[in-house]
Amino acid sequence: MDARLDALRQILPGPRLLNAPDDLEHYGRDWTRRWTPAPLAVALPATVEEVVGIVRWAREHRVALVPSGGRTGLSGGAVAANGELVLSLERMNKVLAFDAIDRTVEVQAGIALEAVHNIAREHGLQYPVDFASRGSCSIGGNIATNAGGIRVLRYGNTREWIAGLTVVTGAGELLRLNKGLVKNSSGYDLRQLFIGAEGTLGVVVEATLRLAAPPPPTRTMLLALADFDAVIRAFMAMRAGLRLEAFEFFTSLALKHVVEHGAQPPFDDDYPFHAVVEYAHEGEADEAAALALFERGLVEGWALDGVIAGSQAQAAQLWRLREGVTEALAPRLPYKNDVSVRISALPAFLHEAEALISAEYPHFEVVWFGHIGDGNLHINVLKPTDMAQADFVRDCERVTRLLAEVLARHGGSISAEHGIGLVKKPYLTGTRSEEEVAAMRAIKRALDPDGIMNPGKLFDP
Amino acid sequence: MDARLDALRQILPGPRLLNAPDDLEHYGRDWTRRWTPAPLAVALPATVEEVVGIVRWAREHRVALVPSGGRTGLSGGAVAANGELVLSLERMNKVLAFDAIDRTVEVQAGIALEAVHNIAREHGLQYPVDFASRGSCSIGGNIATNAGGIRVLRYGNTREWIAGLTVVTGAGELLRLNKGLVKNSSGYDLRQLFIGAEGTLGVVVEATLRLAAPPPPTRTMLLALADFDAVIRAFMAMRAGLRLEAFEFFTSLALKHVVEHGAQPPFDDDYPFHAVVEYAHEGEADEAAALALFERGLVEGWALDGVIAGSQAQAAQLWRLREGVTEALAPRLPYKNDVSVRISALPAFLHEAEALISAEYPHFEVVWFGHIGDGNLHINVLKPTDMAQADFVRDCERVTRLLAEVLARHGGSISAEHGIGLVKKPYLTGTRSEEEVAAMRAIKRALDPDGIMNPGKLFDP
Repeated sequence: MDARLDALRQILPGPRLLNAPDDLEHYGRDWTRRWTPAPLAVALPATVEEVVGIVRWAREHRVALVPSGGRTGLSGGAVAANGELVLSLERMNKVLAFDAIDRTVEVQAGIALEAVHNIAREHGLQYPVDFASRGSCSIGGNIATNAGGIRVLRYGNTREWIAGLTVVTGAGELLRLNKGLVKNSSGYDLRQLFIGAEGTLGVVVEATLRLAAPPPPTRTMLLALADFDAVIRAFMAMRAGLRLEAFEFFTSLALKHVVEHGAQPPFDDDYPFHAVVEYAHEGEADEAAALALFERGLVEGWALDGVIAGSQAQAAQLWRLREGVTEALAPRLPYKNDVSVRISALPAFLHEAEALISAEYPHFEVVWFGHIGDGNLHINVLKPTDMAQADFVRDCERVTRLLAEVLARHGGSISAEHGIGLVKKPYLTGTRSEEEVAAMRAIKRALDPDGIMNPGKLFDP
Repeated sequence: MDARLDALRQILPGPRLLNAPDDLEHYGRDWTRRWTPAPLAVALPATVEEVVGIVRWAREHRVALVPSGGRTGLSGGAVAANGELVLSLERMNKVLAFDAIDRTVEVQAGIALEAVHNIAREHGLQYPVDFASRGSCSIGGNIATNAGGIRVLRYGNTREWIAGLTVVTGAGELLRLNKGLVKNSSGYDLRQLFIGAEGTLGVVVEATLRLAAPPPPTRTMLLALADFDAVIRAFMAMRAGLRLEAFEFFTSLALKHVVEHGAQPPFDDDYPFHAVVEYAHEGEADEAAALALFERGLVEGWALDGVIAGSQAQAAQLWRLREGVTEALAPRLPYKNDVSVRISALPAFLHEAEALISAEYPHFEVVWFGHIGDGNLHINVLKPTDMAQADFVRDCERVTRLLAEVLARHGGSISAEHGIGLVKKPYLTGTRSEEEVAAMRAIKRALDPDGIMNPGKLFDP
């Protein structure tokens, strides 16, 4: 162990500073699996004060830090491949306080999303940010990417639910931001700057999360649809006529993979597109409205088939068809695009994107799914089994560059909810102007003067 | 006219650069009336390009800029008393685009809040930020202070409704931020930084505002209450049992002034406190729930009397009792506090604040009202007629300093929705730590390197 680590061990005694090869590999990578983990060591602080100590140590010794949560990220934001110290929040996973009057829960950043769901539910409330990696992703990571998921349509992104944030900046300063207030017009809302910053400005150590009243009783419908236009027509009709809690879509190819992974096929026939629609169901009027909309869809031609779950178990089965996609594809290490446009721009964008992708990937399986009600599409490309991984990624990056141009023309974003990290960095300026990136760099210098916070992620120094 | 203005006239020909004494006075002040207006001149740009030209001119000539909207601010954020150029957005008040699919309206920053309400209503939607100065305040000013108002309880602050923001930074760069996207995880959300920055980082020139589905049918109830504890008990009971759209309170002294100003007294008897409660009324069950809650209040002792409006006109009359307070007090030039704490901290804070204020202002009329459901209180102190204005302000500032200490102990904010401007600047560090203020200064230097944007507001350089 080098002298720098000897100094760090003063702050983190015993088994809270790791550098065994297994640990370096485990903590040095996220779900991308594209970079070879090579951190200097792994720090597992237990308190805010220890995090402050680590950041000040890093400034003094000019060591780069990679803040690390559940490492379920898909953009390489938590990868440590260049001798960085991994600053894992794993041991800081406690609930600090619950307040029934404020409807908030204060947590350490390392707590899993699902644990927050459970606390909220125990108190008759909900934390409405939700997505498939809920069991292993951490709230700190959710905040660092402003995570979205399957309930954004109704409840918004993570940003909406952060009433207070405690961070340690790259300068080693501890800031307690907004402290749970509903209204506070006292200067720059620095809290917002750390949300979505992917750990490049500082480390999120604690958060005060807003909780919501529990969702209404809902019903879940699965629709079979002919094409993208039908998906959008279905969304517009359902949004106007129902109180939507979620509207998600996936293609027949996504369904094929989920069914191969063990899910039950929903229809006897094969249809090109599917939408999972969850809507408030507080009485017979809601059910009648849903059925009338479905029948209108059959008449107008955008709906081809449909089923409404008759029980919670059936609803879960329908949801599994959508939520199981990522897991079903995972063994194939898909190349992932996570793009968004305004909803109004979806038809034109989809038309161009579909044409681009079928022209550029004639021989690849391309799986489309996602949060169509938010203008957010996941496009997963599967590597042919006989192709070398490096060749595959190179080809996908070439097409992503073209896709970024299409997105720029339609005012879209190259990353809707995964973050930029390492994976999307080459395409950032398709979404954010040079002037915006220059402003971001200037802000990074202001809060992280030595450039120790997750360097090389998001943009190069 | 000096040589600097000759150069500026190249950018702003004709009557769009003013420096007649009347104009300097009119555009140099806001609703505070505490500083003597003394701007260099007043610029009235008509396009984004002209704003860019003005900012670049200001950098070149080292002239300070004061962005200016409806100048209805209560903290002096739009005061120009030191030879600044007033950059008025008055002529940039157009609607640029409405989109029914995205449910957004794109506007120039100088448009009045009420004009946005009207556009939304014409399209069967609502823009839910609302407060009494709606007719004269501008959207740009709303954004600069993250304006709140009477619907925050249900719909949140201005921040929640800004889908895209076009700004000119103090460096003279034009940034088009977020472009109306629902999901966008592509680096720092700079949009959030300009919201609530009081024009100290740049000028907001255009905004894309989200619109919401229209509110449900509502009923309005006025409650008479015995004390602050009763107000909070009433709020907790009503929040649990009804779908609240608003919950506002005011004291008997506020009522007295509004009635003197022409409003109808609601009850025969005089009660210490009142709350205006607006709740969703979609059927008889809602009405029964409201009545049951009121009767419970009578039994439990927190409600002393009450009335439910039987018509729209009656509801407007009840609302006028609350909304008319600011206007009724205006001729007295009240000294205003606009403070907030977490809702859970309200009882303890109110207890201390009330004791402080009755001890420190034994001979002054002190009017309490505000958005109790958001933890936001307005405390307006009226000058005795025989007291000199300067002595009065000095005394109020002494008490505000003590109040700021109480707030700091309860984790509150010295400005909930009015901003810091000039008025609250001496108390900022009671709400934001020295480290936070240092971070804000560093960010200001990053985006406004020459310090030309509204200097001396919020904090000193």
